[in-house]
Amino acid sequence: MAFPMQFLSDNAAAVHPQVWRALQAADTADTPYDTDALSRRLDEAFSELFGREVAALWVATGTAANCLALATMVQPHGAVLCHREAHIEMDEAGAPGFYLHGAKLVLVDGPSAKMTSDAVNASLAAIRDDVHQVQVHAFSVTQATEYGCCYRPDELAALMAIKSARGLKAHMDGARFGNAVAFLGGTPAQACAGIDALSFGCVKNGGMNAEAIVFFDPGFAEVARYRRKRAGHLQSKGRYLAAQVLAMLEGDLWLSNARAANAAASEIGSAGGRRLLHPVEANEVFLRCTAAERETLRSQGFGFYDWGPDAARFVASWDTKDKDARALARAIENL
Amino acid sequence: MAFPMQFLSDNAAAVHPQVWRALQAADTADTPYDTDALSRRLDEAFSELFGREVAALWVATGTAANCLALATMVQPHGAVLCHREAHIEMDEAGAPGFYLHGAKLVLVDGPSAKMTSDAVNASLAAIRDDVHQVQVHAFSVTQATEYGCCYRPDELAALMAIKSARGLKAHMDGARFGNAVAFLGGTPAQACAGIDALSFGCVKNGGMNAEAIVFFDPGFAEVARYRRKRAGHLQSKGRYLAAQVLAMLEGDLWLSNARAANAAASEIGSAGGRRLLHPVEANEVFLRCTAAERETLRSQGFGFYDWGPDAARFVASWDTKDKDARALARAIENL
Amino acid sequence: MAFPMQFLSDNAAAVHPQVWRALQAADTADTPYDTDALSRRLDEAFSELFGREVAALWVATGTAANCLALATMVQPHGAVLCHREAHIEMDEAGAPGFYLHGAKLVLVDGPSAKMTSDAVNASLAAIRDDVHQVQVHAFSVTQATEYGCCYRPDELAALMAIKSARGLKAHMDGARFGNAVAFLGGTPAQACAGIDALSFGCVKNGGMNAEAIVFFDPGFAEVARYRRKRAGHLQSKGRYLAAQVLAMLEGDLWLSNARAANAAASEIGSAGGRRLLHPVEANEVFLRCTAAERETLRSQGFGFYDWGPDAARFVASWDTKDKDARALARAIENL
Amino acid sequence: MAFPMQFLSDNAAAVHPQVWRALQAADTADTPYDTDALSRRLDEAFSELFGREVAALWVATGTAANCLALATMVQPHGAVLCHREAHIEMDEAGAPGFYLHGAKLVLVDGPSAKMTSDAVNASLAAIRDDVHQVQVHAFSVTQATEYGCCYRPDELAALMAIKSARGLKAHMDGARFGNAVAFLGGTPAQACAGIDALSFGCVKNGGMNAEAIVFFDPGFAEVARYRRKRAGHLQSKGRYLAAQVLAMLEGDLWLSNARAANAAASEIGSAGGRRLLHPVEANEVFLRCTAAERETLRSQGFGFYDWGPDAARFVASWDTKDKDARALARAIENL
Repeated sequence: MAFPMQFLSDNAAAVHPQVWRALQAADTADTPYDTDALSRRLDEAFSELFGREVAALWVATGTAANCLALATMVQPHGAVLCHREAHIEMDEAGAPGFYLHGAKLVLVDGPSAKMTSDAVNASLAAIRDDVHQVQVHAFSVTQATEYGCCYRPDELAALMAIKSARGLKAHMDGARFGNAVAFLGGTPAQACAGIDALSFGCVKNGGMNAEAIVFFDPGFAEVARYRRKRAGHLQSKGRYLAAQVLAMLEGDLWLSNARAANAAASEIGSAGGRRLLHPVEANEVFLRCTAAERETLRSQGFGFYDWGPDAARFVASWDTKDKDARALARAIENL
Repeated sequence: MAFPMQFLSDNAAAVHPQVWRALQAADTADTPYDTDALSRRLDEAFSELFGREVAALWVATGTAANCLALATMVQPHGAVLCHREAHIEMDEAGAPGFYLHGAKLVLVDGPSAKMTSDAVNASLAAIRDDVHQVQVHAFSVTQATEYGCCYRPDELAALMAIKSARGLKAHMDGARFGNAVAFLGGTPAQACAGIDALSFGCVKNGGMNAEAIVFFDPGFAEVARYRRKRAGHLQSKGRYLAAQVLAMLEGDLWLSNARAANAAASEIGSAGGRRLLHPVEANEVFLRCTAAERETLRSQGFGFYDWGPDAARFVASWDTKDKDARALARAIENL
Repeated sequence: MAFPMQFLSDNAAAVHPQVWRALQAADTADTPYDTDALSRRLDEAFSELFGREVAALWVATGTAANCLALATMVQPHGAVLCHREAHIEMDEAGAPGFYLHGAKLVLVDGPSAKMTSDAVNASLAAIRDDVHQVQVHAFSVTQATEYGCCYRPDELAALMAIKSARGLKAHMDGARFGNAVAFLGGTPAQACAGIDALSFGCVKNGGMNAEAIVFFDPGFAEVARYRRKRAGHLQSKGRYLAAQVLAMLEGDLWLSNARAANAAASEIGSAGGRRLLHPVEANEVFLRCTAAERETLRSQGFGFYDWGPDAARFVASWDTKDKDARALARAIENL
Repeated sequence: MAFPMQFLSDNAAAVHPQVWRALQAADTADTPYDTDALSRRLDEAFSELFGREVAALWVATGTAANCLALATMVQPHGAVLCHREAHIEMDEAGAPGFYLHGAKLVLVDGPSAKMTSDAVNASLAAIRDDVHQVQVHAFSVTQATEYGCCYRPDELAALMAIKSARGLKAHMDGARFGNAVAFLGGTPAQACAGIDALSFGCVKNGGMNAEAIVFFDPGFAEVARYRRKRAGHLQSKGRYLAAQVLAMLEGDLWLSNARAANAAASEIGSAGGRRLLHPVEANEVFLRCTAAERETLRSQGFGFYDWGPDAARFVASWDTKDKDARALARAIENL
C-alpha cells in the first residue's frame, strides 16, 4: 500500500496478538460447529459482561450479525426503522431485504447519524395503521454511529419509551460498541439499555473474522441459531470464532483496544477546529477539506477515504501509532 | 474430548501449518473486503489450476459456497435437481430455499449418493412442462459424494449430455473435491468437466474457515459478488480468507492433504470386508456394525458418529495419524 | 370445446345462478377493499357455520388461500409436512416456497393421498432435532384429497394427537371441503376438527373467483390480512368476492352443490368395478383404462384428463347433468 | 353509505354494463386457467391496440400487475427506482419487497409525483458502483400519477434516454393509463413509449377484478406466467378475467370510460382555482381546504378522502353523474 500511515478504516487493521494466541490455542480438534468447548462458553462470558443472563452467537461479519438479529424481531411484512445513513441501509447491499424476506427499512433523519426520538415519532406517525402500509416492527440504532457519535443514556431512554409505547423491538448495531463504551464511561449494559439484541463488534477492534450477537432475551437466540445455519454462517470449525470473541472479552481487551483507537482519533480531532463535521466521540474524524488539501495530506503519506467532494474521513484503529496520529494532527493544522 | 483417536469428521480437524503461516503473513493492514492483494490473486490461481479462465470467490462455509453458486443459476421459480442425500437437501437447514428465494429441490435416488443419468432423466420426465409445476433450472452433484464415492468421467459426461439437451446449468459441491481428484487420478478439470460452478472445499482439508467458489463462466461471478455481500459473507478482512485458499493451492497442498486422508481411510476400509456399505474411494468409511460393536470400538478410544441404528461412519482427515488408522483397522477386524 | 359431455375439472364449470344474483346485487358503489358491508359479514357467517368464533378472509384462488394460511403458521426456516401428492407440492408452481420464504415441504406417503398418522410419525422421527435439518412447524391435509377421498374423524383425530404432542399447527386444503362434508355426513366442524386454518373452496363448487380462508384462531387472521395485501390479493372491489362466498353459504348452497357433484361421481363410479383406483367418496373418479379405451370414450363425446399412461380422471361438478353421468357410466360398462 | 354523491375512489365504482355482459357471455364451461378461448385472445387484442407484437396476461389486482411486471426485470439483489409517492412504495404493503425477494425501492422526488430526469440522474449518481450498495435494475413510472398528472412525450423520452444509457428496464404503473391517454390525446403507444411492461388498469375504469400486464418484450411474459401461478394469481376460471379485459378493449370502452371520468374531474377542478394542489389532468382533484370546509362539503352529501390535515382528494369515475360533479363544483366555489 502506498500510504505508510493508514487511516482508511479500522476494518482493515491487523489482528491483535492476544487474538492470535487464542486462535492458536484453539488448534486442536474439537467437535464441530458450535458444540466445541469454546463456543459453549460464550453465553456465560457475555452474561458476565452485561450482568444478566444473555445468549450469544458468533458470526463472521457485522452484516450477518445485524441481519440475523433483526430477523428474529421483524416479520417479512414488517419494517425496521433506522437512520438514513445507517450501515444496514447504506452499506450492506440490501442484506436486510434478504434476511428479512423483503421487510422494509423506514428511514429517519437526525444529526451525526443519530435518530432523535422526535424524528422517530414523526416517522411512526406518518404511517397509516392499515394493511396498505408497512408497519414498523423494530428499530435499529448504531452505537457509536457511522459518524462516530454516541447515544447518551437519556437519548437512548427516550427511544426506549417509544419502543415500549409501540410494542416494538430494538436492535443495536455495535460494530464500534467498544468505542462507544470507552467514550461514554458507564457500563456496557448502560450503553445498550433497553436493547433486545446487540451486534457486538470485534473485527474493527482487533479481531480477525468474528463478531458476536448478544440476545438479551435468550429465547430469540433459538430462532437465530436456525437462521444462522440457514444463512451458511454456522462455520464447522466454530471454535476459531469463539476463540476470537473470548479473547476480546478476556481482561477487557475490547475496551482497551477501543480506548487506544479513541485516543488516536481524539488527537487527530483536536487539530480539526472548525473543519470538524461531527464531534469526535469514538475513533472516527470527519473533516471538511478540499481536494487540494486532501492531496497535500496524501503526499505526506496519510491514507484515508474522501467523504464526498468536500470532506475526508480518518479512522483510527487499536494499532494506530501515537506518532502517526500526532503527525496527522500536525499536518491538518498546517493545511 | 473423550476419544483420543478421532474419526468424527474432517470438518473438526486442526488447521495445517502451511495455512497458519499464510494467515500470519497476511497480518499487515491492507485494503478491506476483497480488494487486498491476496484476494486479487484468486482468479489467476484457480485459472492456472483448471487450465482455463475462471473467476473465484472466497466464502467462509461450504453451505454459503453451494448456495451462492446455485443462486446464479436458478431463478426463484425454478428448481435444483439433486440427490436425495445431498448435503444441500439434508444438512444445510434449508439454506437453498433461503438463497434461491423459495426455489425447490427435486430429489433423485441413486447408489452411494450418486445420481445416475437414468434417474435424472426419469425425474425430469415426470415434471409436466406447464406453469403448474416447478421446472428444473440446474442440477447439483457432489464430488466426492456424502458416502465418499466419486463420479467417473463417463458418469459425469452422461449427466452433462442431459444438461446440454435440457439447457440446464450444473453445480458441483466439492467439499471433498480434493479427495475425489486424489482418487480419480486425472486433472482437476476432468473431475468437474462440464460444471458451471464448483464449491472448492478447503475447510475439511486443512483450512480454518475459507472455501472457494470457482465459476467456469466468469460472468456468473459478477452476480455472485453482489449476492455474497448481500448474504453477509463479504468479510472486511478478506485477506485472511484469501490467504488460506492460496495456501491450499500452493504446492498442491490441497491434493497432498487429500491423499493423506484418503490413504488413512483406505487403511481403515481394507479391514471392512463385508461390513462396507459403500466403496471407500475418498476419506470416508461407512460400516455395518451393531450398537454393541460400536461400544467396543469407543471403549478402545475411537471417536466416530453412529449412522443410523446399524452402522457407523469414520472420517479420516489430513492429520489422521497412520498408527491411529492402523489401530482402527485392527480393531474392526477384531470385532 | 370438442366434447359435449365434460368431466375435465370442476374448476372449469359455470357459475351458479345464485352466485350471479349475489354478484349483481353487489353492483353498487361501496367502500373499497374489505371495508364494504359484505366483506364485513364474513366472520359472522363462518362463525355461524362452524359454531364458534372464527375469522374469515376472501381470496381469489385456492393456491393463495393455502399459502396465506400456511404463512401464518410456518416461519421461513421451518417446514410443512404434507402428502407427496398434495396440491401444494404438485400443482402450485412452488407457491409455498414463495409465500413461506423458502420454507420446505416434507413429503409423506399414504394411500389415496391421505397421510396416515404412522407415516407422519415416521417422517417426523427421521428429522434430527438440530439446526442442520429443517424442523416441521405445521402440517397440511387435504379434505377431500386429490384422489377424492376423505379423512374420517378418527383419522383426523390421530393426526391431531401428533399435532398436540409436537406443538405443531395444522392447515386443511378444503378446495373440495363441501364434497367431503357431503360424503362424511357430520357437521362442517367435525370434518376439520383440530385444524387451525381451513381453505374453504368455492370456485370448484359453483363460484367464479372467490375462496375463503377460515382461521379458527382469529389472531392468525391479523397476520394474514397484511400478507394478503402484500401478495396483491386484496382486491379493491372486494365486495364482489364477499358476495360470492356469502352466496355459497346462504341456504347451504355449498353443500347442495357438493351433493350434486358427489351424486354424479357416484353414478359414474358405480360402473367402475375393478377399474377403480380409489374409492369414490367425493366428486372424482379415477379409473384404470388403456389409451384405446380412453379414445373410445372420447369418441363418444366425453371430455376428461389422462392420468398417466394407464388411467383417466373424471370430475363431476355442481352442474353435471344426470344424463351425462349416466351416459358415462354406461360407456364405461361397455368398454 | 352515508354520502349520496361519492368521490372517494374510482376503485369502488360499479362495474360497467358492457363488462357484465361479457362476464355472462363467458359463463359456459371452458378449459381452465388461461387455456380458454378468451384468454388466448389477449395477446392479439393488445398487439392491435399498441400496433406491435406484445404479450398480455390478466391478473386480479394492480399490485399484482405491478409486482409481477417488475419481477421479470429486477433481480433480488437489485433495486427499482420510483417516485417517493408511487403506489408501489406507499400503498402496496411492501408487495415489491415480497415479489422481488427483497429488492429495494430507491425513492426519487418530483412535482405531482412525476420523476424528473434530473432527479433520476441525481439519484443514480449517488449510488456507488460497488457491491456494498444496491444497484438499480429498473425504474417504474406512473401514468397518470398518484396526483392525476401525466408524463408528456418529451418527459418520457428523457427518462428513456437514461434507461438506454444505463441499461435499465422500465415499468409503467397504468392503473389510470386510460385517463392519461384520454388527456394526452396521442396513441396508447405514445403514452408508454419505451416502456418494457405496462400495468394496464381496468378495475378503476369500469372492470370488476381484472387488470392486464402488457409485455412489450414477449420473452418477459414467459417468466411472468410462472411467477403469476407461483403467486396464486392464475385463476382457474380465468375466462372471467379475460372477458373483462376484452370488454374494456372492445370499441375502446377503456378510453370512453376514462374520458367520462376525466370530464367530471375537469368540471370539479374548474372550481378549484387557487385551492388546486396539482393540475387536473386525469380523474383526480386535490384541493387545499380546511377541516371545517371539508365538513361543510360532507354535510352536503359529498363523500371523499381527507388528504392530510389541510387538503382533500376527489376522484371521479366512469359512472360519476354530471349533475354530481357540477354540484360538487358549485359547493367548492361556495366554500
